[in-house]
Amino acid sequence: MTDLHVATAPRHRSGEPWQGGCVTVTLDDIQQAAHRIAGHVRRTPVLEVSPTCVFKLELLQHVGSFKPRGAFNRLLSAREQGALTGSGVVTASGGNAGLAVAYAARELGVPARIFVPESAPAAKIARLRTLDADVVQVGTEYAEAYVAAVEAGEQSGAMLAHAYDQPEVVAGQGTLGLELLEQIEKFDTVLVAVGGGGLIAGIATAVGDRAKVVGVEPVLAPTMRRTLEAGELVDVPVSGVAADSLGARRLGSLAFEAVRKYGVESVLVEEDAIVAARTELWREYRLAVEHGAAVTQAALSSGAYKPAPGERVVSVVCGANTDPATLG
Amino acid sequence: MTDLHVATAPRHRSGEPWQGGCVTVTLDDIQQAAHRIAGHVRRTPVLEVSPTCVFKLELLQHVGSFKPRGAFNRLLSAREQGALTGSGVVTASGGNAGLAVAYAARELGVPARIFVPESAPAAKIARLRTLDADVVQVGTEYAEAYVAAVEAGEQSGAMLAHAYDQPEVVAGQGTLGLELLEQIEKFDTVLVAVGGGGLIAGIATAVGDRAKVVGVEPVLAPTMRRTLEAGELVDVPVSGVAADSLGARRLGSLAFEAVRKYGVESVLVEEDAIVAARTELWREYRLAVEHGAAVTQAALSSGAYKPAPGERVVSVVCGANTDPATLG
Ligand SMILES: Cc1ncc(COP(=O)(O)O)c(C=O)c1O
Ligand SMILES: Cc1ncc(COP(=O)(O)O)c(C=O)c1O
Repeated sequence: MTDLHVATAPRHRSGEPWQGGCVTVTLDDIQQAAHRIAGHVRRTPVLEVSPTCVFKLELLQHVGSFKPRGAFNRLLSAREQGALTGSGVVTASGGNAGLAVAYAARELGVPARIFVPESAPAAKIARLRTLDADVVQVGTEYAEAYVAAVEAGEQSGAMLAHAYDQPEVVAGQGTLGLELLEQIEKFDTVLVAVGGGGLIAGIATAVGDRAKVVGVEPVLAPTMRRTLEAGELVDVPVSGVAADSLGARRLGSLAFEAVRKYGVESVLVEEDAIVAARTELWREYRLAVEHGAAVTQAALSSGAYKPAPGERVVSVVCGANTDPATLG
Repeated sequence: MTDLHVATAPRHRSGEPWQGGCVTVTLDDIQQAAHRIAGHVRRTPVLEVSPTCVFKLELLQHVGSFKPRGAFNRLLSAREQGALTGSGVVTASGGNAGLAVAYAARELGVPARIFVPESAPAAKIARLRTLDADVVQVGTEYAEAYVAAVEAGEQSGAMLAHAYDQPEVVAGQGTLGLELLEQIEKFDTVLVAVGGGGLIAGIATAVGDRAKVVGVEPVLAPTMRRTLEAGELVDVPVSGVAADSLGARRLGSLAFEAVRKYGVESVLVEEDAIVAARTELWREYRLAVEHGAAVTQAALSSGAYKPAPGERVVSVVCGANTDPATLG
């Protein structure tokens, strides 16, 4: 199960504020996004865990992941352009993207309608409802929920928010990369978890040639890796412990462009390394993370990514939406 | 149950490095401590949660609380003076102070013997043992464990580490206050949890007249409040949800001196406010804290401490040694 794993977002439907032919996200877009969302998102702190490793503690963001950065940028951009009407926003996701859209919509005073499959866990639906979202259960998998969200948007005039493949979303996630540049004096490498690639696309664009960006994926959800191997957007089978956050079956088109442009590297981590890293993050740092947010630590601890001597690595710890009872 | 709640530490026994008549801790002592322990403790980050509230995320410190600051300063000071022998260190505590001493001793390659009462929970003993400590169960309460630790120290030549009432311990805890001055541009007030008072004494000394320091205690463990009312060190009955970390029955003599000298204020919080604040810290910030570390948030959320308009408050979030299963 995953968020919005169908193809790429329809970018020119009604309610979509993005105009013009060129949809490449630029550093300037990210800087504008940072201004736009300031005050709405937390500037999350960094923790130097060794002379060569820094954690970006994005799990302390509102609703427990980086996703509000993109969601706020999407909604606020639309509002600036008059495209955020009283019909509000629709999305399809029972995960962190859905929580972020629900949260941002509530903060901005517009309604959010979140489409999830009938199989979505009751706990997730309950959390969305505590954020005042209108949750609609439809179909048996996310692809159907997504189609329903798109249709609902077209009928109602509500704006569609995509989980990772819209320029404003990528630019919003990229603000995390700008913060790294401001918060950390010098770093060589950033390790980033990859699902549909919105986060890594934003960070790679923000960081440019100032550091190497490495995408980390579970071996059971190697969407970016397989896409880079294929040289084109392909559907990739996904499963495993981190599939609820990293299980996008298809890389975003914006991410595909960015990871090639910036020469992003790909690292895969085993399931047991992810589980061990999540336990380690709790035991050694008292960070309660979900499996998808443990993959970068897994890359370091398992040796799947081996920094050179003296290489300063930033590990983005990007999500805390986990049942704490499973940490102990 | 509490750590070392008997009177004050015997300061001039064998193995005690502190010499001379004057035991007031100074800013200079804290600055020296900061140099001494650098590289051994984490410089924990701060999180701006609103324009007028900043969290100091000391729960991300090694072994989950601020206590390693004091423990390292105690052990490293002794080592500088040749007083840290192969006999190592003894202490009495099944809580965060014990964990910190065990951790610091292991890192410095000396043995640690930790005395706990026979009633100490198996989980705490197991954790101390994973840090290679020699755990000795003796007596029915901490007072007895403490006497046994003092005796063992005298017989073996091992150094005694107190949980809060030794100058090196207070100076070590004070390094947290120095970090606040470096990390936060301007703040008016620091809210600090109080047990035996080592942390607040160190912070008040570090901060001096640059900010107001407010001590927060549970209504059921009002040791500092009762001591200030009595005008002398008195035994105070303690109980409640936070007693395992804030349940010192007697304020440290160094703390008593410091809180009077710096005009520290006292705030009490109700049990239900502590429980609610702990839940809030998890829900809103994904911070997994123990009850003792939730009292400052409890003071803010319950209105027990009401900042003036525009007053910039630092809330020290000081411990994460909690069963995560109880957070959800
Ligand atoms: C915690 C967490 N990390 C990483 C990702 C992957 O983000 P993206 O889809 O932008 O690659 C997600 C997506 O939901 C997530 O929730
Ligand atoms: C988490 C936590 N907070 C606060 C305190 C109180 O510290 P002090 O005894 O120095 O006042 C303790 C003491 O064990 C603690 O563990």
